[in-house]
Amino acid sequence: MRARKPALKPYDELIKLVKEASLMASTSSLLSWDQETMMPAKGVEHRSSQMAQLARLSHEMATLPRIGELLEQCEGDSGLMKDATSVAAVNAREIRHDYDRKTRLPAELVEEEARLSSTGLHVWRGARQESDFSKFRPCLESMVDLLRRKAKYYGYPKGGEPWDALAEDYEPGCTAKDVQAVFAPLRERLQKLLGELAAGRKKPSNAFNQLKLPVEQQQKFVRFVAEQIGFEFERGRLDVSTHPFCGGTHCNDVRITTRFKEDNVNDALGSVMHECGHGMYEQGLLTEHIGTPMGSAVSLGIHESQSRMWENQVGRSRQFWKWLHPKLADFFGSAAGSLTMEDVYGGANIVKADFIRVEADEATYNMHIMIRFEIERAMLAGDLNVKDIPGAWNKKYKEYLGLTVPDDRRGCLQDVHWSMGSMGYFPTYTLGNLYSAQIFEKAVSDIPDLLGQFEKGRFSALKKWLNTKVHAHGRRYPAADLCKKVTGKALSAEPLMRYLEGKLNPIYGV
Amino acid sequence: MRARKPALKPYDELIKLVKEASLMASTSSLLSWDQETMMPAKGVEHRSSQMAQLARLSHEMATLPRIGELLEQCEGDSGLMKDATSVAAVNAREIRHDYDRKTRLPAELVEEEARLSSTGLHVWRGARQESDFSKFRPCLESMVDLLRRKAKYYGYPKGGEPWDALAEDYEPGCTAKDVQAVFAPLRERLQKLLGELAAGRKKPSNAFNQLKLPVEQQQKFVRFVAEQIGFEFERGRLDVSTHPFCGGTHCNDVRITTRFKEDNVNDALGSVMHECGHGMYEQGLLTEHIGTPMGSAVSLGIHESQSRMWENQVGRSRQFWKWLHPKLADFFGSAAGSLTMEDVYGGANIVKADFIRVEADEATYNMHIMIRFEIERAMLAGDLNVKDIPGAWNKKYKEYLGLTVPDDRRGCLQDVHWSMGSMGYFPTYTLGNLYSAQIFEKAVSDIPDLLGQFEKGRFSALKKWLNTKVHAHGRRYPAADLCKKVTGKALSAEPLMRYLEGKLNPIYGV
Repeated sequence: MRARKPALKPYDELIKLVKEASLMASTSSLLSWDQETMMPAKGVEHRSSQMAQLARLSHEMATLPRIGELLEQCEGDSGLMKDATSVAAVNAREIRHDYDRKTRLPAELVEEEARLSSTGLHVWRGARQESDFSKFRPCLESMVDLLRRKAKYYGYPKGGEPWDALAEDYEPGCTAKDVQAVFAPLRERLQKLLGELAAGRKKPSNAFNQLKLPVEQQQKFVRFVAEQIGFEFERGRLDVSTHPFCGGTHCNDVRITTRFKEDNVNDALGSVMHECGHGMYEQGLLTEHIGTPMGSAVSLGIHESQSRMWENQVGRSRQFWKWLHPKLADFFGSAAGSLTMEDVYGGANIVKADFIRVEADEATYNMHIMIRFEIERAMLAGDLNVKDIPGAWNKKYKEYLGLTVPDDRRGCLQDVHWSMGSMGYFPTYTLGNLYSAQIFEKAVSDIPDLLGQFEKGRFSALKKWLNTKVHAHGRRYPAADLCKKVTGKALSAEPLMRYLEGKLNPIYGV
Repeated sequence: MRARKPALKPYDELIKLVKEASLMASTSSLLSWDQETMMPAKGVEHRSSQMAQLARLSHEMATLPRIGELLEQCEGDSGLMKDATSVAAVNAREIRHDYDRKTRLPAELVEEEARLSSTGLHVWRGARQESDFSKFRPCLESMVDLLRRKAKYYGYPKGGEPWDALAEDYEPGCTAKDVQAVFAPLRERLQKLLGELAAGRKKPSNAFNQLKLPVEQQQKFVRFVAEQIGFEFERGRLDVSTHPFCGGTHCNDVRITTRFKEDNVNDALGSVMHECGHGMYEQGLLTEHIGTPMGSAVSLGIHESQSRMWENQVGRSRQFWKWLHPKLADFFGSAAGSLTMEDVYGGANIVKADFIRVEADEATYNMHIMIRFEIERAMLAGDLNVKDIPGAWNKKYKEYLGLTVPDDRRGCLQDVHWSMGSMGYFPTYTLGNLYSAQIFEKAVSDIPDLLGQFEKGRFSALKKWLNTKVHAHGRRYPAADLCKKVTGKALSAEPLMRYLEGKLNPIYGV
């Protein structure tokens, strides 16, 4: 006869159940990666069925009533919860956070959202192609209506607003007021900077961005860079997809992608630096915490800070290009031989107001985000009707970037997010820029001669610093607290503006 | 208020449940493919957890008591079961077959087998490396003991033997006596042929197999061939793995692999032709029956007949090489320019008795299989002790192939199968060779100038014929019946021997 297994302690049973649900979600994640990179075209229908099955099962697993019971037992165990930043207390707190949110939505609403997202995405694609907002309007109206109801189910503290309830999925603890408090000064200083750059004495060369370089050579080049900066290929992959992303299943299997255009190696390189930043965050999470909040990324804003730091603070720095410029000839031969250091460094730092967010430089980019944030916030608050979006959009583009939007395709129809119900998401991009500048400034002051190391192709000190200061904490501290803990200060627009001004003014002869 | 959904009819509910279980199994299958082709090295531990979770869930889904209830209801519905080859009757019959087998094994035995397989595989690897059977012996003894118990749980008809009960997983309806009835005459005629070839006046050139050709060129070459013979890349992929295999998730997402050796393009080509055969069978199953027996392959023997047909009957034919030989220069330039038609056709058809099964030619290959079949059959019947395997093995190699086995590594330790508990599997390889010859002979008589079409690079008539005659039936007919239905005759050694003699005698000047 077998010995009866001793019953698990509540915390251990809780972790076991949560890991089961995460494990299933990690399988979903692999299926998504495969769909974007490997799956043959005709596999799509069956793949949807596979994804729906896993989504249903992992939702069931993550909302088991037993999890609720165990949480109550853990929360009542004062020994376990004593130190609020201990592994157990953090896991219990964050599992509670996720469990409550997941169990708060009625199944009908979740189904309705899945259906609306699917339709919305389809209709949005057609409307964008025809540059006709009126075709998309009914879908978006239904979506805004649904999201307002969803925000009610989620709830938000007194003094808050519907946007806050939704943003909690992306940037926990961050409210519209918090965002506005840092976006307002940012906008003012950015507008001043953009004006000055436009009037600058110099213009960086665009020669590098126009060079035709074979894709096979670009592939070897960006893989080399990814390896050098510290993305681990024993625990990751780099592949090709239409839109670059970072996926995979857990910290030991992180999969990033990029895309290649023959006449724009900077696009592939920038994407790889960016996704490596995301990927190294994931690889920096601790193996011992896989499948629990302590082994998960804290917020999209912090995630984006890692990608932006490697893409911008590192990958568009003079020191980085001093290292990489002489290597271009090794990968591209004579085609790149005539490029000067100023060509490549300048080419990576061109600032130009334009219509499309995803093609924007690191300065104007934030203006695109502010416009979207203000519009979605007003929509969710009931202060802006969907039918008035194109007008509001175009007015803001004129005001913030001095641009006259020619059509909806290059205006309010350019982004996929709203069609899929992602509202409260956009600001995480600019929060990422702000966090990245503030955290990097601290890294520069902590690590002796950090920029000098880049010149020698040494990136491990920065990676290790980020591993310790940011990655290893998982969800131990909320993003805003983590920022204070790492940098000693609350998030502000200052470091990003210091960084942009410090770099761009000399390039533009301001 | 919503209208209440009408209750599903028993057959429809049965199919729904079975499809759910298949869907989950198809996700497992994708994870396996990914593990062999894409997964970074350090991902292996997490992947095992993912696979174990899916295996547990899909087993639960496939053995739901509700399936048993619904089966009884369907079986009692004389209208539904009237025509035994109708879709519904076939599905009910085959679901019953699978359900009974799956529910017959106690959970402890399944767990024990999983554990033993895992250990066995590990221990076998070490023992093979050291060429020391005594290290593997205890594992194999436990495994044989377990498999004999497993065979009892499965059960077999009176007059049968334990081997039959296990082989049912691979070649349903096929008994050891059936195998022996066709292997005995095959062995006699093969031995005669091998003797004659060895004494033949001519020897084919080995020049083609020794050519050094860059892997990148080989990749383009084999992909071209795969496309030309009819493997559909919109519904499939071709990648690289250590051991070539055919995987994927369903008929619209079929993934084959090969491997490349610089000095053996025939290895990559043969593997691709072989896996394309498997792949085109999978792609030939009907989309409307995905996830049900009617949309599944009937047996491993029939599956192997498809791979062997494209690898051997097509890919080692004079007409195939008449088409492909002039194209070698396009892919390999002057490196292949000096090869004559006789070099390439002869090089694809060298017959030589040797120790390793997976490297064997299409004639001697069957001898390797017979030896394994006889040994595993005797072990399961209790007529041969595990400790006596090396002796029995070496004796048979001497007798069947005239070879003196130098060590266990090149002897009874060469194959992975037994370490993982796969007994009853080996004969499906030779059944595949037999079926392929018999079915191909019929195709040649049905399709005007079939071989002449190969010379012009036209392969679609054969594929379409196989689609209709074999693939579209799924599991409608048991393998032996399918063979009779397609060829008009029961399986026999005659067509394979006619094919081998007809091709090899002229090459060897017999």
